[in-house]
Amino acid sequence: MNKIKQVQKYLTDENIDFAFITTPDNVFYFSNFKSDPHERLLGLIIFPNSEPILVCPKMEVPDAKNSGWNQDIIGHLDTDNPWELIFHEIESRQISVKNIAIEKSHFTVERFESLQQLYPHANFYRIDDKINQLRVIKEQLELDKMRKAAQLADYAIEVGCKAIREGITEVEIRTAIENAITEKGYSMSFETIVLSGPNTSSPHGVPGSRKVQHGDLILFDLGVIYEGYCSDITRTVAFGDISDEKKEIYDTVRKANESAISSVKPGVRAMDIDIVARDIISNAGYGDYFPHRLGHGLGVSIHEYPSIMNTNDLVLAPGMVFTIEPGIYHEIAGVRIEDDIVVTENGVEVLTKYTKDLVIL
Amino acid sequence: MNKIKQVQKYLTDENIDFAFITTPDNVFYFSNFKSDPHERLLGLIIFPNSEPILVCPKMEVPDAKNSGWNQDIIGHLDTDNPWELIFHEIESRQISVKNIAIEKSHFTVERFESLQQLYPHANFYRIDDKINQLRVIKEQLELDKMRKAAQLADYAIEVGCKAIREGITEVEIRTAIENAITEKGYSMSFETIVLSGPNTSSPHGVPGSRKVQHGDLILFDLGVIYEGYCSDITRTVAFGDISDEKKEIYDTVRKANESAISSVKPGVRAMDIDIVARDIISNAGYGDYFPHRLGHGLGVSIHEYPSIMNTNDLVLAPGMVFTIEPGIYHEIAGVRIEDDIVVTENGVEVLTKYTKDLVIL
Repeated sequence: MNKIKQVQKYLTDENIDFAFITTPDNVFYFSNFKSDPHERLLGLIIFPNSEPILVCPKMEVPDAKNSGWNQDIIGHLDTDNPWELIFHEIESRQISVKNIAIEKSHFTVERFESLQQLYPHANFYRIDDKINQLRVIKEQLELDKMRKAAQLADYAIEVGCKAIREGITEVEIRTAIENAITEKGYSMSFETIVLSGPNTSSPHGVPGSRKVQHGDLILFDLGVIYEGYCSDITRTVAFGDISDEKKEIYDTVRKANESAISSVKPGVRAMDIDIVARDIISNAGYGDYFPHRLGHGLGVSIHEYPSIMNTNDLVLAPGMVFTIEPGIYHEIAGVRIEDDIVVTENGVEVLTKYTKDLVIL
Repeated sequence: MNKIKQVQKYLTDENIDFAFITTPDNVFYFSNFKSDPHERLLGLIIFPNSEPILVCPKMEVPDAKNSGWNQDIIGHLDTDNPWELIFHEIESRQISVKNIAIEKSHFTVERFESLQQLYPHANFYRIDDKINQLRVIKEQLELDKMRKAAQLADYAIEVGCKAIREGITEVEIRTAIENAITEKGYSMSFETIVLSGPNTSSPHGVPGSRKVQHGDLILFDLGVIYEGYCSDITRTVAFGDISDEKKEIYDTVRKANESAISSVKPGVRAMDIDIVARDIISNAGYGDYFPHRLGHGLGVSIHEYPSIMNTNDLVLAPGMVFTIEPGIYHEIAGVRIEDDIVVTENGVEVLTKYTKDLVIL
C-alpha cells in the first residue's frame, strides 16, 4: 500500500474528514516534492475518499510537477489568501468537514486560528504520531538511499582527515569537506561541524578560526543527503600524540558506542540502548559529561522520531533507523562517536563504516 | 532603551504577565544567543518587572553564556519536561499569570496546549506584530553589519562570475562561491542558487549538473551572514552573446529594479514600490511571468517583515531594510535582479553594489 493510501485508511478508521500535513519533510515523504517555503504556506491535504491536494506557492507549481506530483495543486500568490482557496476547493468537492487532523507539533497557532475561522465547529486531532509510525519503518528503497548517504558521510570524514595539518583552521577543514561533497553533486544534511582542541568540549560548538595544533583531538559531525535521505556521522580523531586522559575518554566513548550498538535488536526498548551507553560512561566516572540523549531517528529529516533516551519505552522493530552517539564533553577534551544504524530482523546493521579505532594523524 | 526594555514597556502597557519568545532569530535578536535547537525547546521569557529567562537545552548553556547572556537560564535535559521547569521558576518568583503573549506565527499548537495546561485560565495574545515593529527599524549598529554582509555578497557574485567557463556545472560554480566565503570565515544566508540556461525559468530552481553553454543566462541568488545579519543578492549575467529577446527581458527587469529603488523614501507605502516594478514588467508584456512579490524584509532573518507586495499599505520609514527583486521567468530565460536597500531620512541607500549593467562573460 503506498504511503498516502495508508494515511487514507487511517482517516477512514478515525472518521476524520481531512488531514492537513505541513512539515516540509512530511510533504516530501508523501509527495516527493521537496520545498522550503519559508513563511509561505506549503501543505498536503489528504482526504479519506478524494484525491489529495498539494498546496504551495504558485511559483513552485512547475517544480512540484517536475517532482512527479500529478494530482491536484493549489498554487497561491503572495497576494492570495490561501485559506480561502483551500476552503473553496473543499466546498466544491462537497465534503462536509467535522473532524480535521493537523500536525500539532508543527502547525502554528496562527494557522490553527485561520483553520478554526473556516471551520468553527470542527474538532482538531493530532496526526503527528500516525505519521511518525509510518516514517519510522523504512522500506528497502529508503534503506538503499540511506546506505548511500552513509557512504558519502564516510567519504566526507576521510576528506576531513586528509585536510588536517598544523595551522589549518576549523573553518578551512569544513570547507574542504563541503567542497568535496558539493563537487560530487550532493548537499550536506546540516552545516558541518569541525571542532579542535578545547572547542571539542561543547556538544554543539560552531567551527571557527582556531588553528589545529599537535596534541589536539578533532571532532567532525556531518552528514550528506542522498535523494532526500540524510546521514549523520561523528568521528573524533587525534592530531599527533594525545595524553592518556584523552585516550581514556576516547576509549570510554567508543566502548559506549559499540556496546549500545551490540544491544540493538527487535524487541529491545529505546531506553535500554541509552542505558547501556550511559552506564558505561557513568561507571568510568564521566556521567556528568554526557548531557544528551544517546541518539535520534534519521531519514528524510536529520532529527526525526524516535528519540533514543532513557525515558522512551518504544520497542524497536526491523526497519527503524537511528543514530547512536554517546559523547563525553570534558574540560580537557570532548569526544563523540556517532553511527547510523538500522534495526534488522535479527539485530543491527551499521550504515556508517568509517573506522572507530583511534585515528592518529 | 535596549531591546528587552522595549518589550517590557509593551508588556506593562498591555497588562501582560510574560511574553514567551520562541523564534530562534528573535531569541538571537534579544539575547545575542544564536541557536538552532531543532525540536528542542528554545525560548526567551520576558516579564514586565522581573529578570528575563533564557530557556535552552542544558548542553547549550555554556554557549549561551559565551554569547554574553548573563541573566537567568533554564537549561533542560532531553529527559526533563521543560514546561514544568518554567512553571516552577515562575511560581517561585510569585508572579500571578493571567495574560501571556506568544509568537502565534511560530508557536506550535502542541506547545500552546502545554502552556494552556499549566495556565488553564490564562488569555493568550500575539506578540508577533510588536516584535516586527521593533525589528523592522534597524539601528546604526545593525546597518553597519548589513553593509558588511552586502559587501560580502557582492564579492560572492564576483567569485561566481570568475568561475564561469564552458562546461562547468551549476553545482561547481556554487562550490566555488561557497568555498570562497567559508574561506573568509563566513557562512551563506541560505544555500546558494546558481541556475543556467533553461533552468533560470524557475523562480526557485535548485542547482544541478547542467553544464554552462555559450548563449546562456546564468542567475546567482545568494547571501552572506555577517555577525548574525543577512544579505541577499541576485544577479543574472550572460555567458557570451545572448539573443535580443533575452536582452529585452534583462532590460525590462533592470528597469523595474531601478525604478522601484528610485521610488523608495519615507512616507511611500510598500505596495507603491511593488506597483512601480510590476507596471513596468506588465507594460512590457511580461506581467504573467512575474509571479512573486517584489521583495521582503531582511535582517537577522533572510526573510522577515515586511513583505513588499501590492496589498501591503505599510508606510516606509527610515531604518527599514528590504530586498527589491523583480523577475521575469519566461520559457526562453529567467532573469531576476535583487538588491538590498535601506530607507534613509531622504530616500534610499542601496547596500548591494555589484553592477547591474548586463555583464557578458
